[in-house]
Amino acid sequence: MLHPDRLFPVEPRARKIARSLYEGVRDLPIVSPHGHTDPRWFAENAAFDNPAALFVIPDHYIYRMLYSQGVRLEDLGLRRLDGGEVETDPRKIWRRFAQHYYLFRGTPTRLWLDHALETLFGLTERLGPGNADAYYDAIDAALKTAAFRPRALFERFNIEVIATTESPLDPLKSHKAIRDSGWAGRVVTAYRPDAVVDPDFAGFRENVRQFGEITGEDTLNWRGYLEAHRQRRAFFKSFGATSTDHGHPSAATADLLAHEAEALFRRVLAGDASTQDKELFRAQMLMEMAAMSCDDGLVMQIHPGSWRNHNPSLFATFGRDTGHDIPTRTDYVQALKPLLDRFGNHADLTLILFTLDETAYSRELAPLAGHYPALRLGPPWWFFDSYEGMMRFRELTTETAGFYNTVGFNDDTRAFPSIPARHDVARRVDCAYLTNLVVNHRLDEDEAHVVARDLAYRLAKRAYKL
Amino acid sequence: MLHPDRLFPVEPRARKIARSLYEGVRDLPIVSPHGHTDPRWFAENAAFDNPAALFVIPDHYIYRMLYSQGVRLEDLGLRRLDGGEVETDPRKIWRRFAQHYYLFRGTPTRLWLDHALETLFGLTERLGPGNADAYYDAIDAALKTAAFRPRALFERFNIEVIATTESPLDPLKSHKAIRDSGWAGRVVTAYRPDAVVDPDFAGFRENVRQFGEITGEDTLNWRGYLEAHRQRRAFFKSFGATSTDHGHPSAATADLLAHEAEALFRRVLAGDASTQDKELFRAQMLMEMAAMSCDDGLVMQIHPGSWRNHNPSLFATFGRDTGHDIPTRTDYVQALKPLLDRFGNHADLTLILFTLDETAYSRELAPLAGHYPALRLGPPWWFFDSYEGMMRFRELTTETAGFYNTVGFNDDTRAFPSIPARHDVARRVDCAYLTNLVVNHRLDEDEAHVVARDLAYRLAKRAYKL
Amino acid sequence: MLHPDRLFPVEPRARKIARSLYEGVRDLPIVSPHGHTDPRWFAENAAFDNPAALFVIPDHYIYRMLYSQGVRLEDLGLRRLDGGEVETDPRKIWRRFAQHYYLFRGTPTRLWLDHALETLFGLTERLGPGNADAYYDAIDAALKTAAFRPRALFERFNIEVIATTESPLDPLKSHKAIRDSGWAGRVVTAYRPDAVVDPDFAGFRENVRQFGEITGEDTLNWRGYLEAHRQRRAFFKSFGATSTDHGHPSAATADLLAHEAEALFRRVLAGDASTQDKELFRAQMLMEMAAMSCDDGLVMQIHPGSWRNHNPSLFATFGRDTGHDIPTRTDYVQALKPLLDRFGNHADLTLILFTLDETAYSRELAPLAGHYPALRLGPPWWFFDSYEGMMRFRELTTETAGFYNTVGFNDDTRAFPSIPARHDVARRVDCAYLTNLVVNHRLDEDEAHVVARDLAYRLAKRAYKL
Repeated sequence: MLHPDRLFPVEPRARKIARSLYEGVRDLPIVSPHGHTDPRWFAENAAFDNPAALFVIPDHYIYRMLYSQGVRLEDLGLRRLDGGEVETDPRKIWRRFAQHYYLFRGTPTRLWLDHALETLFGLTERLGPGNADAYYDAIDAALKTAAFRPRALFERFNIEVIATTESPLDPLKSHKAIRDSGWAGRVVTAYRPDAVVDPDFAGFRENVRQFGEITGEDTLNWRGYLEAHRQRRAFFKSFGATSTDHGHPSAATADLLAHEAEALFRRVLAGDASTQDKELFRAQMLMEMAAMSCDDGLVMQIHPGSWRNHNPSLFATFGRDTGHDIPTRTDYVQALKPLLDRFGNHADLTLILFTLDETAYSRELAPLAGHYPALRLGPPWWFFDSYEGMMRFRELTTETAGFYNTVGFNDDTRAFPSIPARHDVARRVDCAYLTNLVVNHRLDEDEAHVVARDLAYRLAKRAYKL
Repeated sequence: MLHPDRLFPVEPRARKIARSLYEGVRDLPIVSPHGHTDPRWFAENAAFDNPAALFVIPDHYIYRMLYSQGVRLEDLGLRRLDGGEVETDPRKIWRRFAQHYYLFRGTPTRLWLDHALETLFGLTERLGPGNADAYYDAIDAALKTAAFRPRALFERFNIEVIATTESPLDPLKSHKAIRDSGWAGRVVTAYRPDAVVDPDFAGFRENVRQFGEITGEDTLNWRGYLEAHRQRRAFFKSFGATSTDHGHPSAATADLLAHEAEALFRRVLAGDASTQDKELFRAQMLMEMAAMSCDDGLVMQIHPGSWRNHNPSLFATFGRDTGHDIPTRTDYVQALKPLLDRFGNHADLTLILFTLDETAYSRELAPLAGHYPALRLGPPWWFFDSYEGMMRFRELTTETAGFYNTVGFNDDTRAFPSIPARHDVARRVDCAYLTNLVVNHRLDEDEAHVVARDLAYRLAKRAYKL
Repeated sequence: MLHPDRLFPVEPRARKIARSLYEGVRDLPIVSPHGHTDPRWFAENAAFDNPAALFVIPDHYIYRMLYSQGVRLEDLGLRRLDGGEVETDPRKIWRRFAQHYYLFRGTPTRLWLDHALETLFGLTERLGPGNADAYYDAIDAALKTAAFRPRALFERFNIEVIATTESPLDPLKSHKAIRDSGWAGRVVTAYRPDAVVDPDFAGFRENVRQFGEITGEDTLNWRGYLEAHRQRRAFFKSFGATSTDHGHPSAATADLLAHEAEALFRRVLAGDASTQDKELFRAQMLMEMAAMSCDDGLVMQIHPGSWRNHNPSLFATFGRDTGHDIPTRTDYVQALKPLLDRFGNHADLTLILFTLDETAYSRELAPLAGHYPALRLGPPWWFFDSYEGMMRFRELTTETAGFYNTVGFNDDTRAFPSIPARHDVARRVDCAYLTNLVVNHRLDEDEAHVVARDLAYRLAKRAYKL
């Protein structure tokens, strides 16, 4: 199923160069500086439940595609908020998935799944209705063995370090348990404060109150609230965090005077803030986070431009993160200006930008990152974590920002078994891109080898201080 | 002139695969679910007038290019609204066209024309000033023969079904004549209500009045007006219609309360509606049409984002549809939300989206269609009905929406002799795209054959219920 | 270092065609209709100072990249406005540049520099820290010889004509000196009135006053101000100018009544104009310039969409044009409408449009230029003067606007030694693009040869009336 030359250019001379570049990076350890694996897996090291629970139910790439073709989410086992009936037989869910596997033709999900099926479970035929049951049995049996426990997979995947993402309200118990266990695997956290920074986040006010409880700061007071962030960031750092992450609707930043920010915070807490006020508060908080990063050295990531929960009926039934977030046009040049005016020239700040709006690559992101010392470009994100997405990213940014204002790959996933596949795709596509430069003589082959290693390994470690 | 491998990748292994994929779809019947051929042709089956009337005068792709290089539309035989003098000698028009044929180098028009000249008329040399007269004579002679009558061409083109597009005010006499004639060719209509839905349409108020006359409903009353639509849609269905089509400036939709909609309708009819009111009315009418589609099963198409009649001086002289419509930025994520909130999860509604703003492909359209069961993506439209346009469409949408949220090809043309060429280009480009997936092992070759047939034939029939 | 097949496709048949197309254009004279070389070079014909002064200090592509990676502009020898200390040793600057040369991997700067080093100085090894001193010495020695004086290079570069860009306030002394010198090199000026047209330009009011002094017109009066433009344009024409150039934040145009324009001019001169008023004034001035072009035949260029001086701290320290201009979203369809309404159908006006927003290529620019007789598309500009940028330009515009609504290449540079490299890149990429059309049979090979020559030479001469 897996061709050794997959994702490489077809022309024989080019393919040979791509192979050679890939040889040099294939076996490098995985550095995963941003993602959503559950630290409990590594803390408890329990077996994964079953094939459906591992591959289908948690993967929004999978169920959004099936949903778009008329499959009900209930029939894929997604939990309803009202406790209503949903499919509970994992084998039936798996069969449904296998029956619709053809929908993923030409998509990255197909590449990831095929890779996992073959490399992890030795299953080398294409999944389909005909082999669904046999595949279920094979995977299920494997998952019951010691070799498929989370820590064993972590080691087998050759992960040098992986970052999870937690809310400031998270007590990081799993991270503590990992540390206390003496296991050598390096799992670090990252500070994602949306729950206490975004007034539109469910339970915002209560979150801020709890934030105070956890930190012992008066978080209903602007100074206490900021202090709580500082304290909590330090706590996260003590569990290995080297970065923060911010998932805002836009990339807006603001630079309010202290008393303005304080008044805004009061309005936002009072719960009657306008849409503009909420946006302004998020904007101001990016500035505060940048200021704190200048102090504590945490690398800052902004993931803007997702319209969360676009489908109200799904949201009401299944809640957030169930496959109906939609990208929106995203401006950076105007939005980031307040922050860049203050911190853009700080070579000691690292601000990594992501986008769901590919039009920004050549028009905004590459020119900004090709100038401001504080800025770096994150890899193609979400819908663009794919062959074409990565090719476009390199083609649209390299000529202006070069390679060294980018930061290597993020798998950004909660689908643990897909992690090697995702890094493998990224390495292959970067090798294919570099090959294109080599074969039409825009880059020497010896340099391409160096860059391939930088993109696969070194840049991620350097940018994320890992 | 026509190379058998045209539009295929050059690398020998890839070309071989492309050929083999194309073999499997080349001779499939043409399904043309959306277009602008004149049903009168098939009703009356009269000979086409002459080469200029067939190829040049009705083709806005052709005269807009010549106009951009300083050729007057009068000299191409376009009728002036004021009855002013224009070229009436079709041979002179044809010569002018031949003289400027070099302007079409690298454009789809060139591909279409070459295809028609060679396959229909056996003319295998490139058109130019040197052979213009000989070509004119050859084509003119052929057009006078029975083999070049509309029905004969329809059969020669292997058209399984073709949809025309009519206004609700159209009595569908030609469609009736076709049906009554006993001819086996399948020509269906489609419901395009812009003339009675768009307050900016010329003669809107009078159109609505006439709409009442035709249907016997009180169309100056909101309920009567909606009833007239229901009735007329049923009438169109009785002439084979399976779809509606909506050509609005934007994709805006709205969900007004009944009394708000009623009041808006009154303002719009009164003729003093503001620009916003007119836009809101079109938006509300998309919602009403979707609601009716849920009832009567008509597939809904939205073709938004064309700034019609951008050139006021041309508009004054020659009227609408004379080659000066210009694309505009088009939002879908916000614009469609009211409609999707109500009907997006209806798996029995089919809403096909088109765009003239390619930035929407990867950012908005693929993510929306990759989630909402009601949505499908129409093929590349108008300026993008081309090799590069189709390649970009697939590259930008497949990874997120897959193949099965797209609907095959539309020729969307009034240029009847170009229909086989257009479908041939689409089939070739899809085969070329699939080849790219096969040669770098993103798709197995056996699957590519299945997908090629789906894209060339099955998806159009399924999506349009034909 | 320079491969003879660089930028050509790798597939052997394709490469052969590309070579053959390139053979036909490689040695054509350079026509440089828009750029920023200093006419004083050609007037005085003095030796260039040293390698750093020639290659590093004036090249914003170079120092913006180094700055983005933490190199201070002071350390690259950029002059501080406050007279503060900066590096003055050109050898140290050169070493710093060589040490960071790896940052340019995959960028056009690398192509240009390698080309200049090898073809001008015979330096065939990749620049790096190891050979920095030797390269410095070799270049420095060459610059002291007669063969490297500006006029000698001009002739060696085979420049048929080059346009510089001057403000209306420039007395054109260097141009006069060139003319008086009897030297045969053709150096013409171009009229770039931003300094007296853009109310946000530093010293605008004083500039307008000076404009009056130079022309003897009462430029504080609207009619006198317009008259001064007319007069000055004629003066520029007498020094060979065939074009004007306009670098506005947007492409906005306006068509005010005379008394409105007059009142606006007064507000703008008074210095208390609003942001909107300033934008409106620039918009109106594009209209006035177009009207004058209809009279005096000067070709009009619009370079919109750059957010100048995005980094206030750099601007305060080093002033304008120091590598921190950032592209912005740019609308053309709405913005140009007033101008097109009046002059779009004038086949005797030539208005050349540029963009820093590539999304406009297929959505706005190609459709506009593919219709309006007055419009032509300028080549890829600034960040997009690159392999990928040029490929995207052709792929996104040709199918709608063809080749003959484009105008050939602009080097648009103040980096004199890079001019042959830039034209060579453009010729190679156009040949590569044409090859792509030939090998999949969208264009016949004999036609591709004609088009290659048109793009490399003829179209620039024709569009710019050179």
